Order: sequence, then structure tokens, then C-alpha cells
Amino acid sequence: MSKQILVLPGDGIGPEIMAEAVKVLNLANDKYALGFELSFDDLGGAAIDRYGVPLADETLARARAADAILLGAVGGPKWDAIDPAIRPERGLLKIRSQLGLFGNLRPALLYPQLAEASSLKPEIVAGLDILIVRELTGGIYFGQPRESKVLENGERMAYDTLPYSESEIRRIAKVGFDMARVRGKKLCSVDKANVLASSQLWRAVVEEVAKDYPDVELSHMYVDNAAMQLVRAPKQFDVMVTDNMFGDILSDEASMLTGSIGMLPSASLDASNKGMYEPCHGSAPDIAGKGIANPLATILSVSMMLRYSFGQVAAADAIEKAVSLVLDQGLRTGDIWSEGKTKVGTAAMGDAVVEAL
Amino acid sequence: MSKQILVLPGDGIGPEIMAEAVKVLNLANDKYALGFELSFDDLGGAAIDRYGVPLADETLARARAADAILLGAVGGPKWDAIDPAIRPERGLLKIRSQLGLFGNLRPALLYPQLAEASSLKPEIVAGLDILIVRELTGGIYFGQPRESKVLENGERMAYDTLPYSESEIRRIAKVGFDMARVRGKKLCSVDKANVLASSQLWRAVVEEVAKDYPDVELSHMYVDNAAMQLVRAPKQFDVMVTDNMFGDILSDEASMLTGSIGMLPSASLDASNKGMYEPCHGSAPDIAGKGIANPLATILSVSMMLRYSFGQVAAADAIEKAVSLVLDQGLRTGDIWSEGKTKVGTAAMGDAVVEAL
Ligand SMILES: CC(C)[C@H](C(=O)O)[C@@H](O)C(=O)O
Ligand SMILES: CC(C)[C@H](C(=O)O)[C@@H](O)C(=O)O
Repeated sequence: MSKQILVLPGDGIGPEIMAEAVKVLNLANDKYALGFELSFDDLGGAAIDRYGVPLADETLARARAADAILLGAVGGPKWDAIDPAIRPERGLLKIRSQLGLFGNLRPALLYPQLAEASSLKPEIVAGLDILIVRELTGGIYFGQPRESKVLENGERMAYDTLPYSESEIRRIAKVGFDMARVRGKKLCSVDKANVLASSQLWRAVVEEVAKDYPDVELSHMYVDNAAMQLVRAPKQFDVMVTDNMFGDILSDEASMLTGSIGMLPSASLDASNKGMYEPCHGSAPDIAGKGIANPLATILSVSMMLRYSFGQVAAADAIEKAVSLVLDQGLRTGDIWSEGKTKVGTAAMGDAVVEAL
Repeated sequence: MSKQILVLPGDGIGPEIMAEAVKVLNLANDKYALGFELSFDDLGGAAIDRYGVPLADETLARARAADAILLGAVGGPKWDAIDPAIRPERGLLKIRSQLGLFGNLRPALLYPQLAEASSLKPEIVAGLDILIVRELTGGIYFGQPRESKVLENGERMAYDTLPYSESEIRRIAKVGFDMARVRGKKLCSVDKANVLASSQLWRAVVEEVAKDYPDVELSHMYVDNAAMQLVRAPKQFDVMVTDNMFGDILSDEASMLTGSIGMLPSASLDASNKGMYEPCHGSAPDIAGKGIANPLATILSVSMMLRYSFGQVAAADAIEKAVSLVLDQGLRTGDIWSEGKTKVGTAAMGDAVVEAL
């Protein structure tokens, strides 16, 4: 039975890095007889240019029908002046929300070969391996009402709403506990329960879910403290679970601790582990088209897809091993390059992974 | 004409560190003939124990009447099980809001003597000197409506509201620009304008205010990117201005970059520079009563008070110099201690500053 993969290269460096990931995916497809059929479409700025909207209905329909989605990155200055309602990011938010991809897994892993690239001291980050589980379809990103208006006194004002329901919290908490169970058995739930009503409910529900996971050690931390602890002693964390906005901030902070944001993949899963996979980094318009972007995060997103959506552990492991081998060989794109290593471009890096695989 | 200073030691290590700050304040008062009259009251847990509420009406009245307020820290496990509506933090939020202390200045400064205490590489943080200007009386901290309720289907849900008006944004933006003008002339405004309606207004109003500050270089950054850039290359920043919630998170992250959070003071100012001054760190219940807490952030808060609320630049400079001298002498409390330095307790550290002054 064939599996449908929808590939959305997106904007900026998206098409370049995706070309390499597709090379790797095609090879894995053949080698492990995965039965994948790939189709391609546009999202974000590319979709605005082609369809007039950042996510066309037909693209959404294709995404619904697919078994998994592989995404490059969206956005760029070209579409900055556009009506906020149809900006590239809206396409990303809409596909997350429409497909119910509430469980966002963002690993922050330090590659030993790249240890010196971190801005933190080696002893603070050596062996760092955190998984941030971010709620992705609720909270202030989608809360209604939200409005921008003019008050009677002539002043403008705008507001957003941050809502969470018990079931939204429960299902993401479960993802957090499930992940902790197969990793270091430690879950840290991050909120701002000393200030926010939504965080108080968050904490209460996480406590309830914890009863089903007596083998996982649960802690709670305020988001300001978490932002601090990630800098002070990041290795204290195993899995962190948090809401959409806090997860956006903390996962970017955590990924930068590793010094190798060009290496980090992510998964966004629905209730049945159907998922969208994408690199943690953005569309990097400043280096787009130059053939120098790092394709490894996108290639590792392929590996995550094989692991989480298709249970193809052997193929997923093989891709990760191939990436590690290429790093051992000293190959580096500009973003992770250091003295004594061999600087290569996007395509050469992709080819090297294909070769290693 | 005498000036009234209201001292609120608060909870945990609050009373210990405040005792040292008061020694320094009394000496400065005599030496520079400042004409300060000190009075004392309770806030937070101490106020719950004494008055049954975290901020008594009479304390608030005294705070209103005072020319400046010096605060230790609030909160602790003793009051964790208390009704959220009267938790210690509520006292802090209420005094900020009732006194209109909207302008929160949080410096993140690396003391050269403590450079090795940072978890970041020396070359990344050497000379770090950032000022975070946080909006402190608006946004999601105080937004209405906020509610926790049970839906018709029996599910619980809770929500908060994140509102900002033009005038709230304008006045904090001005503080940001004014500070940048007397520092490095660079202001970075942090928001999430690609997602939030309130952030779109934030960005628009900051742009308008910028017209009055052609000498200040303004940039905008999304909060997730800012959390990342603070780790990657913090020295790119001079002044950052942002909303209440983002400021809470980013200022804690930034202060930890310095490795010396026990050293960092803060100011919360109203429209006429009346202010409340407090250390950036919390009440540290785990070390309370042991006489080992670092009083320097509170002592430096006295210096900030002299500078911002009373324009006593000479006295403020003298206190900062005294602190620097004590560090040069190798004296360290446990939190900033390193091999080869002399470990001292809270009182000895306070006495050393008094001596140096
Ligand atoms: C592009 C933006 C809307 C998005 C988000 O905030 O979720 C991005 O920052 C991310 O983290 O995937
Ligand atoms: C104690 C808490 C309510 C407070 C805040 O979030 O503002 C604290 O974290 C701070 O930053 O002063």
C-alpha cells in the first residue's frame, strides 16, 4: 500500500534545502521499500505568488489526504508589506490548526561534533538533549476574540485572547508524559500560574494527567525561571511541555543553546501521529538562492517523519547515522563551519548524506 | 525638605538583604545629607501573616505617600496553598498597578570581576551591558476579562486577555527611546507582530514614537528570535523595550547571561519618576534565614533609587563604586563565589560595602 507524502518547499532557502531532503527521502524510499509517493505544492509566500493566498484550499485538501507532510520554511521580506490576514505565516498557522497538529516536538540536541559552535561553555552544554513539547493549535495564537479597534476617546487599542480548555491541555500533557517515559523519565511543565488563569488550569490538568504516569517525575516551573534555567543549567531538563506562546520562545532559546540550529528538525503531530515535519530554523531570506544553506535539519526532519508517522525505525536510524558520519568526515555548511573543517554548499552536503546512506 | 522612603523587606531572604541595604542607605543619607526618612511595612507573605492580605490598604496608602519604595522580594512555599487571589505575588502586582509603575528598568550587566560566573563563553558576554525596558502595568498581567469556568459539556476552560492601548504603548516606548538616547542609541522593540493583534499595534505605535527620536536607531524583533539572539550574540543589544509578559521572560533570560543575577537591581517608575526599587532575583526561600544571601542587588537598588528618583548622581555613583571595590577585594557571597575568592555572608558583605563607602 503506497503512502502519500506532500512536500511543501516554501520560501527563501526552503526549495534548496528541500531538494536535498528529497534526494535522501527518495533513496530511503528505494532502499527500505517504503512505498512513498511524493507530490509537491506551495505554502507561504510561494503560495501567495501562485494562488493569492498563503494556503490554498486545494493545498489544504492535499495535505489532509496525505499521510505526512514535509515542509521547508515560509516567509520573507517580499511579502512583508502584505495584508496581515494573508501573510505567509498565516498559511503555516492555518495548516497547523486545520489539520489538528497540536503536538509539536522540538528537540534541542547538541551534536558532539559541533560542541564548539555553542555560545555556552562546553561543560554546560556537553551532551545536551532536551525535547520541548509545544502545544501548537491553541492558546493565544488562535484565541478569539482578538481585535484592533478605535476607542470612543479616539485612542486605538488591540487585544488577543489566551484560552485553554481541559481537553487541549490534557492531550498535550499526555504527549509530554509519553515522550518522557521513553526518554529520561523527567517532565517539566512550564507555565505562569502565579499570574495567568489559563496557566492555573494548565497546572491543575497536568497534575491530573500525572496520576497515570507514576514512573515519570513531574516538576512545574514558571516561564521566566525556565528561560533563566535554560541558560544556567540546561542539562537539568529532559522533556519540557508548555503552551503555544511559551513553547515558541523557549524552543528557540533552547535550540540556540546547541549552537546548531541548522541541525534541528521538528514534528507537528495530530491525535493519530499523522504529522508535518520541518526544520526549526526559518526561511533565511538573506542567504536564499546562494546554495549555502544547511540542509541537515530538513534531512533530519525526514528521519523524524519515518520514525514518528511510519514507525520505520531502521530507516530513521540510518539517516541519522549518515548525518553523523558526514559530520565526522568534517563536512560543514557555513553556519556550522569552524577552523580546520571542510566548507561545503547545500547540494554537496545533501550528496554526502546520500553517499553515506 | 525630608523625603519619605518606604522599605518593604518582604519574604524569604528579603529581610536579610534589606538589612544590609538599609545600612548603606543610612550611611549615604548622612554622608550626602539626603534628608531621607525611612519607614517600614510588609508586603507579600509577610503581609498575609500580619494583615491577612498581601498588600494592606494602609500599606498602599503609605506607598502612595512615600517618595520612593525599596522592596526586598516576595513569595515562598509557606503561602503556596493559599487562595490564588491573595497570594504574595498579588501584593506585588497590585502595588505596581495601583501606583502606575509602568516603566520597569532591568539592566543586565556583566561585572568584569564575575565574568567567569557566566555559563556563556567569555568572548560572548565580556562587556555585556543591556537594559531591558519592560511594560509593567498592562498586557496579559492585568487584562480583563479573565476567567476560569466550566463549559456546558462539563469541561473546564480558562482564559486571559492581552490588551494594549496606544497610550500605554506610547509611554513605555518613550522610556525605551529616552534610555537609548543616554546610552548606546540603539533600541530594539520586541513583539510577536506576525501572530498577535496587540503586537501589531505595539509595532505601529513604536514606529510613530520613533519619529521624535531620529538619533536613536530602532529595530524590531520577534520575541522567539530575541530569546535566541540573547543566547547567540547578546552584545548586539543596547536597550530592548517590550511588553509585560515578554519582558518578564527576556529580562530573566538576559540577567542569567551575566551569571550574576544576585547583582542586578531594577527600577519600576511612574510617569513622574517616582519609583519602586528591588533586586531582580526572588525571595530564595531555600536559603532564607541562613545569612548567606547576596545583598548586592538590593544595595545597587538603593543606588538606582538615588539616581532615578532623586537625581543624586554622586551618591549613586559612590555606592556603585563601593560595590565594585568590594568585588575587587575578592569578597563573594556563595552565589558568586569561585576558587581563590573569599566567601562571606550577607552581613559581612553589607559591612564591607559600608566600609568601602
Ligand atoms: C512563523 C511563526 C508564526 C511561527 C510561530 O510563531 O509558531 C514560528 O516562529 C515557529 O515557531 O514555527
Ligand atoms: C512574582 C511575579 C508575579 C513577577 C512577574 O512575573 O512580574 C516576577 O517574576 C517579576 O518579574 O518581577
